[in-house]
Amino acid sequence: MSDLCNCFGIAIRQARDAHCWSQETLAERADLNRSYVGEIERGKVIPSLVTVDKLALALSISMSELMMRCEELRRVKGHKKISLSSIAC
Amino acid sequence: MSDLCNCFGIAIRQARDAHCWSQETLAERADLNRSYVGEIERGKVIPSLVTVDKLALALSISMSELMMRCEELRRVKGHKKISLSSIAC
Repeated sequence: MSDLCNCFGIAIRQARDAHCWSQETLAERADLNRSYVGEIERGKVIPSLVTVDKLALALSISMSELMMRCEELRRVKGHKKISLSSIAC
Repeated sequence: MSDLCNCFGIAIRQARDAHCWSQETLAERADLNRSYVGEIERGKVIPSLVTVDKLALALSISMSELMMRCEELRRVKGHKKISLSSIAC
């Protein structure tokens, strides 16, 4: 499940970067703790649905769009793993 | 935020009903506790992203699709509230 949290963290980081915001700015806009946002981006914590909603709202994207980006990152990661195992064989 | 959890619960209930599954069946397939699934459906708990993923996987829908249904339910609920306040005015 850390794979899911890693990909969610990357999706948040990418959306934050698109706004050119610091973690502090995102944390403030989402009403979350700055260090908690950092942990989310590094995939170190499992966010709740309410946190996902707060982040999506702050980043001006829908939760479904955010999850779509997360799923896309998981797919890419999965493909990379398959490619590497093919090389290993 | 209870609005979000309520709508998420309804979306889960609807997806479970579409499979004609009991809460027990869904709980078993999602590797969750039966009473916890009941609480989620009633909007009594805030599920984590990992729980959302488990439920989506068990219900054979993507997380983004599940969140889309949840957002749609929120929109409908919001409209109903607006309509009622219009009548009240």
